[in-house]
Amino acid sequence: MADDRPIGVFDSGVGGLTVLRALRELLPGESTVYLGDTARVPYGTRSAATVERYAINNARTLLQLADIKALVVACNTATAVALPALHASLPVPVLGVIEPGARAAMGASLGGTIVVLGTAGTVRSEAYPRALHALGHRGDVFARACPLLVPLVEEGWLTGDVPRLVVEQYLRGLPADADVVVMGCTHYPLLRPVLRAALPEPVALVDGAAATARELAALIAERGLARAAPVPTHRLLVTDAPEQLARLSGAFLAVAVEPGEVELVDVVMAV
Amino acid sequence: MADDRPIGVFDSGVGGLTVLRALRELLPGESTVYLGDTARVPYGTRSAATVERYAINNARTLLQLADIKALVVACNTATAVALPALHASLPVPVLGVIEPGARAAMGASLGGTIVVLGTAGTVRSEAYPRALHALGHRGDVFARACPLLVPLVEEGWLTGDVPRLVVEQYLRGLPADADVVVMGCTHYPLLRPVLRAALPEPVALVDGAAATARELAALIAERGLARAAPVPTHRLLVTDAPEQLARLSGAFLAVAVEPGEVELVDVVMAV
Repeated sequence: MADDRPIGVFDSGVGGLTVLRALRELLPGESTVYLGDTARVPYGTRSAATVERYAINNARTLLQLADIKALVVACNTATAVALPALHASLPVPVLGVIEPGARAAMGASLGGTIVVLGTAGTVRSEAYPRALHALGHRGDVFARACPLLVPLVEEGWLTGDVPRLVVEQYLRGLPADADVVVMGCTHYPLLRPVLRAALPEPVALVDGAAATARELAALIAERGLARAAPVPTHRLLVTDAPEQLARLSGAFLAVAVEPGEVELVDVVMAV
Repeated sequence: MADDRPIGVFDSGVGGLTVLRALRELLPGESTVYLGDTARVPYGTRSAATVERYAINNARTLLQLADIKALVVACNTATAVALPALHASLPVPVLGVIEPGARAAMGASLGGTIVVLGTAGTVRSEAYPRALHALGHRGDVFARACPLLVPLVEEGWLTGDVPRLVVEQYLRGLPADADVVVMGCTHYPLLRPVLRAALPEPVALVDGAAATARELAALIAERGLARAAPVPTHRLLVTDAPEQLARLSGAFLAVAVEPGEVELVDVVMAV
């Protein structure tokens, strides 16, 4: 059994490229289509009903334009808010970033407090504490909003004093028994070296992107959805500003992309 | 002649509170009504047509709810995009933040390059270079986007190493003949001490908020619109998250505000 259709990935912007990168590294034989809804970014400040509508638009766009065989929601806000609606309305398997990240955090914890770093929207949504407790985590969860990290990453300031001091400030005053820190935002893996250096050695640093890629790989193997055809293809779609995604792709995707390779599309609005 | 109606001020969010603060300090006898369109922030990433529509919504809301006698558009994006439409459709005088800031910059320049610091949206709009050239400025204009400054201010990180290093980074490589730096974003006056310390002594640091307040004071005096009644009143309106504006008001407005004092309103949608 084989399925040569691509894997679809969407995010509100460019951050989901770190999830795409993890997917492409773990599943090098698979084709992918990424949709960055850059015209409507950020999702974190919008109402749940609006985010759900945007998520459905994005999913239908990937189905119509690229006939995807599975969907990864590479956006914490959309995962927190719209996953049930996507599961209910799509004809393909759907995976979010939060549950894999939470599961990986539990696997790494020795019973101490799990710390979640995220945007203000993700922290406010309480999606990680909810997911952790639903998975049976009995310890404490401590979530900290880190609003400076996304603009820091998008500026490309990934080394030197500024990111070091910003990260140290955000990690100040964590619970003494913290043994896991989850990067609960798709931008944060670019700051992994800075975060790692600022954390005491025994604290595990968990990447939701990598965990999501592993769970998708398992799902594809289980359901016999692996691609058999040679030479996979990769498409990048955005709803605005293709040049911005191209500019950031070197850092986020670890692949240099020309602006002409990024396709500008309209989302499918009809439900 | 007197006019006891309040002055209306709107912004996409909380940044315009620095303009409101300058107004209240310069015109302590005037009543004010501030509208922060926090449900639809940020404007910088939206299309011109959408920003124009939002600006008209906000202006009509202030007219209907508070019967304002003059409107200050305390938002660089809305000023850049919607000022002509507001002038054309409102029955009261309208003032934006860009022209006063540009005029103050010209007054402070000795013929060198005028540097404008702003958000990516404001820099991309080229509103300051356009305003400066329209006002007759013959020198160069150098605009630099500083995306980290807004989240830095909203985090309340206004002193210490992080803001100092971030500001130094953004001021690196300015033209050698720069003699004026304009704070082209309503958040930046909160970083004035940091910006001042990072600039060589002869470079003037211009605040669009203060310049806007001065021009409004002149307009009110000229047109005989000054308030005569005693004890002015001040209202704060938002379209979402009153507690957030209350939390930031100490820093932005230099007035402590309780969440209960901030009114949640719907904008008037009909044109």
